[in-house]
Amino acid sequence: MMKFNQFGVIDRTDDERIAELMAIKMLAENERQLAPKTLFERFVRRALPEYPTIGTQNDWLRAHLADKASENALAFFSNDTPVTRQIVYNVVVELFDLQEAFIRADYDGYQVLRAVNLPAKQPEAVLTTHDLMVLWYDILTWHTPVGLQFIDVLASRGYFPQDNHYRQFNGKTLPTFATNDLIRETVYVESAVDTDDDGLGDLVRVDVIRPHTSERVPVLFTASPYYQGLNIAANDALLHDVNVPLTRKAPNQVTYDEIAYERVPFEAGKRSVQGKVDKAVQTFTKEQSLPVDISNYFLSRGFAVAYSAGIGTKDADGFQDTGSPEQVESMKNVVEWLAGNRVAFTDQTSRMAVTANWSNQRIAMTGKSYLGTLATAVATTGVAGLETVIAEAAISDWYQYYRDNGLVIAPGGFPGEDMDVLAELVYTPMQQPAIWRQKQASWRAFQANTAKNMDRTTGNYSNYWDARNYLKWVQDIKIDMVAVHGLNDWNVKPRQVYRLWQALQAQGGHHKLFLHQGQHIYINNNRSLDFADQMNLWLTHKLLQVDNDAIATVPTITWQDNRLPETWHVLQAWGGGQAETMALSPQPMLVSYVDGLSDELYQKYTTDFSRWRSDMLLPTAQALEHTRARWLMAPLTETRRLNGEVILHLQMTSSENVGLVSAMLVDYGDAKHLKQTPSATGEKIDRGVNFAPVPLMEFTLDNVSSHKMITIGHLNLQNRTSAWQNDDLLPNEWVEVSFGLQPTLYEVAAGHQLGLLLYGTDFEMTIRGNQKIAYQIDLAQSSIELPWEE
Amino acid sequence: MMKFNQFGVIDRTDDERIAELMAIKMLAENERQLAPKTLFERFVRRALPEYPTIGTQNDWLRAHLADKASENALAFFSNDTPVTRQIVYNVVVELFDLQEAFIRADYDGYQVLRAVNLPAKQPEAVLTTHDLMVLWYDILTWHTPVGLQFIDVLASRGYFPQDNHYRQFNGKTLPTFATNDLIRETVYVESAVDTDDDGLGDLVRVDVIRPHTSERVPVLFTASPYYQGLNIAANDALLHDVNVPLTRKAPNQVTYDEIAYERVPFEAGKRSVQGKVDKAVQTFTKEQSLPVDISNYFLSRGFAVAYSAGIGTKDADGFQDTGSPEQVESMKNVVEWLAGNRVAFTDQTSRMAVTANWSNQRIAMTGKSYLGTLATAVATTGVAGLETVIAEAAISDWYQYYRDNGLVIAPGGFPGEDMDVLAELVYTPMQQPAIWRQKQASWRAFQANTAKNMDRTTGNYSNYWDARNYLKWVQDIKIDMVAVHGLNDWNVKPRQVYRLWQALQAQGGHHKLFLHQGQHIYINNNRSLDFADQMNLWLTHKLLQVDNDAIATVPTITWQDNRLPETWHVLQAWGGGQAETMALSPQPMLVSYVDGLSDELYQKYTTDFSRWRSDMLLPTAQALEHTRARWLMAPLTETRRLNGEVILHLQMTSSENVGLVSAMLVDYGDAKHLKQTPSATGEKIDRGVNFAPVPLMEFTLDNVSSHKMITIGHLNLQNRTSAWQNDDLLPNEWVEVSFGLQPTLYEVAAGHQLGLLLYGTDFEMTIRGNQKIAYQIDLAQSSIELPWEE
Repeated sequence: MMKFNQFGVIDRTDDERIAELMAIKMLAENERQLAPKTLFERFVRRALPEYPTIGTQNDWLRAHLADKASENALAFFSNDTPVTRQIVYNVVVELFDLQEAFIRADYDGYQVLRAVNLPAKQPEAVLTTHDLMVLWYDILTWHTPVGLQFIDVLASRGYFPQDNHYRQFNGKTLPTFATNDLIRETVYVESAVDTDDDGLGDLVRVDVIRPHTSERVPVLFTASPYYQGLNIAANDALLHDVNVPLTRKAPNQVTYDEIAYERVPFEAGKRSVQGKVDKAVQTFTKEQSLPVDISNYFLSRGFAVAYSAGIGTKDADGFQDTGSPEQVESMKNVVEWLAGNRVAFTDQTSRMAVTANWSNQRIAMTGKSYLGTLATAVATTGVAGLETVIAEAAISDWYQYYRDNGLVIAPGGFPGEDMDVLAELVYTPMQQPAIWRQKQASWRAFQANTAKNMDRTTGNYSNYWDARNYLKWVQDIKIDMVAVHGLNDWNVKPRQVYRLWQALQAQGGHHKLFLHQGQHIYINNNRSLDFADQMNLWLTHKLLQVDNDAIATVPTITWQDNRLPETWHVLQAWGGGQAETMALSPQPMLVSYVDGLSDELYQKYTTDFSRWRSDMLLPTAQALEHTRARWLMAPLTETRRLNGEVILHLQMTSSENVGLVSAMLVDYGDAKHLKQTPSATGEKIDRGVNFAPVPLMEFTLDNVSSHKMITIGHLNLQNRTSAWQNDDLLPNEWVEVSFGLQPTLYEVAAGHQLGLLLYGTDFEMTIRGNQKIAYQIDLAQSSIELPWEE
Repeated sequence: MMKFNQFGVIDRTDDERIAELMAIKMLAENERQLAPKTLFERFVRRALPEYPTIGTQNDWLRAHLADKASENALAFFSNDTPVTRQIVYNVVVELFDLQEAFIRADYDGYQVLRAVNLPAKQPEAVLTTHDLMVLWYDILTWHTPVGLQFIDVLASRGYFPQDNHYRQFNGKTLPTFATNDLIRETVYVESAVDTDDDGLGDLVRVDVIRPHTSERVPVLFTASPYYQGLNIAANDALLHDVNVPLTRKAPNQVTYDEIAYERVPFEAGKRSVQGKVDKAVQTFTKEQSLPVDISNYFLSRGFAVAYSAGIGTKDADGFQDTGSPEQVESMKNVVEWLAGNRVAFTDQTSRMAVTANWSNQRIAMTGKSYLGTLATAVATTGVAGLETVIAEAAISDWYQYYRDNGLVIAPGGFPGEDMDVLAELVYTPMQQPAIWRQKQASWRAFQANTAKNMDRTTGNYSNYWDARNYLKWVQDIKIDMVAVHGLNDWNVKPRQVYRLWQALQAQGGHHKLFLHQGQHIYINNNRSLDFADQMNLWLTHKLLQVDNDAIATVPTITWQDNRLPETWHVLQAWGGGQAETMALSPQPMLVSYVDGLSDELYQKYTTDFSRWRSDMLLPTAQALEHTRARWLMAPLTETRRLNGEVILHLQMTSSENVGLVSAMLVDYGDAKHLKQTPSATGEKIDRGVNFAPVPLMEFTLDNVSSHKMITIGHLNLQNRTSAWQNDDLLPNEWVEVSFGLQPTLYEVAAGHQLGLLLYGTDFEMTIRGNQKIAYQIDLAQSSIELPWEE
């Protein structure tokens, strides 16, 4: 049975509840004195928007049941049986389309509601009119099997007129804006950067979708370099070879100050404005125009949606190399136009200016991955008009995405990708033949420069990477952020959000964090969590300035249980607690392993790195056994939760003057774990009234497995001091290294054992030169810090 | 590179072309005298509907290329270079969004168009104004990578006003009906059947979606018992055990006349009409309301769409058992209402009548599988108003679906399903608690009766099955039918359409057949074939009565090549040719095999019948080797095509007094075959203007395989004479059996070998009692008829 977890319902007094029922015309002033049964009948009939006549409503009532004593609901309304909670619940489960469960439960709606985790209570209680009004209000806020609150279900079924005016219920904005008559317009914002060196600010294309309304509307802006398309073939052609050896770096002494990047304001030449128009002229029709589901949800609720791919993409000027200050500035400039603080033109040449005169100048940025990354980056500029950011699976530091601790480290699943490859993927002027013929040579030169700067040879942190580390400027974030991340996201790894979160927490504010058990996915179409409702509450407050307790209501941290399906908990903190440090061995003990495989095995794993990882995670790794050391803790006597960073301190040697160490923390013990990709439930969520349906998804349990990787980390043995300095390393010299694995929040079940795998090459993430390097670890001199919760 | 195959383009004279260009406002009367280059510039600018101003159009022209001699298309339009076909082609590939291929081809649009199989010619030719008009007309009919003709792409990008009036181009209706303002209404048709025995015709619910227009509109009606939902759990609970032995049938003498079903007209009691209204009152909003993609395509083109689940479903009266005369009648009655010949009411009780006063009374029925089946069945009633049927993967004879030659045979993939199971799946009153409480007992009695009638014990054909064999009434089909079927559809197997097709061909008319290489799928979203265009031409003729050469243009038979991807051929006939008969051995030769497996293997294959089939198809079947006889033909010296039915004549014995024989014809030889399920191309097809997008699909080649099953067949050795008579069978007695395998149309490559596998239990399709029965076949006395094409 499905299970709902709602955190976005705000508490209302009974009087407020009744007033809200009247405001949405569910209740008339003069109905407050009606007998409970008469009022209940009116409520039910009003919950049938497709049945506008008494006759059609009666058909529905005849087919459904109020209680087992009456032949059907229509008969119930003509007999003397009083209205109990049980009876209301019975009708509600039928309105919620839970008939099958209702019949299976021998027509007991209370039992069905409890089974789906809805707060049904005391079924026998006979209701007064007052009780009924309060109860009906609450029911309207309950979640249903189609992924929406019941009031939103009624809205999507036609309860409200689509009159393009704002309405709220329980603090959340309702879908009362017509999505069948949207305005789609394109403008060209003059940015503050001049990356093509023509003396003028690079123009960037912005596509806006907004309702036809006389109200000034807020804007959800998604900065997506992917928005104008992808160059898949060019991307693949540029992938770097990862089957290369780790090479020695000449030892040096470098301080952070020597490589630190300083921000400087951008100021490009401005075009002279030739005139002003009230409305944009260019439009767009491509399917790609509404890629982000959560944007559709808000579009029907009166929020405009804007997309820009930024500089260095189709219909924009300039060049960009992934996350650069110039790219971020161009996205910030879009916010400035939306907030009335920058010029945009109707096309690329006429210099006719157009203002966002329809905007209420309050903007949120949203999006996953690269999109959320740029939202975070723009937040660090402190730009006026940006009121909040919802950043999902976002990068906060590009070094951590393509590098780590002095190593070239691929995002999980993407060996060979790098800053230049990602820039190539989105350099969509490549799809504009005349432009491409002109720009091809300069783009190649630009890319060559990027390749040099990103430096795959040393893998070190540098001024280039420092410019793309937004954590440096967290103190300039003046708004409340919402962060969403998967604890099994090995593409954008959890440290990306962890460090941002720690920094935000340190400086105060009312930030919110959602940690789910998925990989690199969106959760806004998840069935068991009311994520969209919570974001509605949040943006209704932040962008429409409605006083709705959003800040106090949305939990600071919502964590998805890693053992129980469809279960979400409210937590107070992620990390920051006291860790338990334990030596890896109580008595002297050396372990060793050799990195290097037969040609055959090496070929096999280079072409199938997922197979390598699953083989490596097995309790006995067979042909891989010699390539790893495995440390096992005693079985847990009680279930405990890891919360934060696991840190390793290792005393070790390499047989060469180069070396790396990789580590996976593993949960050993037979169990069903949640799949990292949610499954389709078969239902679709309506994002308005018959608008932009998306599949409703839920995390389900996988088959029993003997193990589950909890977290992972990597380090270059020449980067023991820092990511920017090369330490010396001599063959067989004992060195001490400390490094953190990716932060986690993970419950280990009683009886399970924690294990640590130490090894060299990671076929999915590191370079893989198949060098035969022998490593030794002195376990007694090595330790692990485990952030167990008390 | 993708490849287009267009058969839906009609030939026009130059004058007609020019007149049509003017009718769609692509050309003005006074522009016919313009210089070619001036006119070409106008055409290109008109092909940019999102760019309404000269300034925005110039931006586009600056980004694209006309020829390599000019910096960009805008520069080209200001210089003296004449317009050649090459230049038109260059711009066209950019308008078609084939930029990547264009750049890869060093800016040669001609080469790109030829590569995608579009009829580009003589690139060097300098064009006159007349040439240009003719060429531009043709280009508007060409297919593009988004699965639409270019004119439809322009329409979906806003070229035409959505003014709810009909427009045709090249004989096909354009999407000029507003899909953002559709009428959705529900009525209750009073059918002519009274299956719940209440003295009144069963009401059936009909949902209509139609454009807001003053034109009378035709209707696409889909009869879908699935439309009101599915009872998955109840379906699964009712599945029959297939792990049961084959039992002996007492020999008898039965003639067809003894079991023949005779149709009788239905006439149920009629409700008194209490009044009449102009418009329906009830509406509907569920996502399920637009399930069929092709319906969406036509909705934007001014065709109404109607759905009904028929009797024995939610919001309808009565009971039905899969394909019954009563179910068919109730669907026929819906056509009668749409054609103005039957009463419908606004709800189930008020008796207020409502007419389809918006209908032009010309109806087509469409749908796949059960839906297409009912469309075919209704066609055999000859009902007035039904003008054509598009039946995809449809059943023509239910006996052939759940039985065959005296055996219980499951549709591929669905062991244990049967007539009662399918009825249970769609008995959606089960989801209406009050109704279910009242009807549960009668439904169980009805189902018990069905179970008795369908008779899983003998598997024989009977009066019950004869009533559900629509092939009996093909002579009553007075309309032209379109049939679509997958030659790898082992769910609804190819004989279903073959027999219908043979019967239709025998009686004349202008029927059309599409045979693809997929399994049980729709092809309307396939990239390489212009199926939707052809259906547009067809229905524009049949339902809007436009004289557009549809009958002559749509090929009689379109066959997808089974060896070359994205290749479709026009054929004249399927089957009916002369077959080559060959003995299975030139000299005396007995082969034998024993049906029966170890418990372990038996368990394995009962839980994974796909594994059984793939093991069985291997050249050496290992643990299954003793369960089969394999006959191999000499390798083919040239590529040859099988076209029709393969028929086996076997002289054989069973070691028991029961027995069955199964046969698979196999193509042995290493080759890449097409996957039976098309793959997503990544593009979506717009079904109007930003309406109901669906993924664009294409068949792709699978990995190399050593074998491919071509066709299959099964027979009960006690049904040598007919499916309705039990023949005697004595242990080890030689008997002669003849039976056809499923019809095929399959090209066997030179060097490949045809093979025949003869065996007993088919783990996917027959019952599987694991009886140890030994079979012998006398190959010299056995033969195979192979329908090779000359």
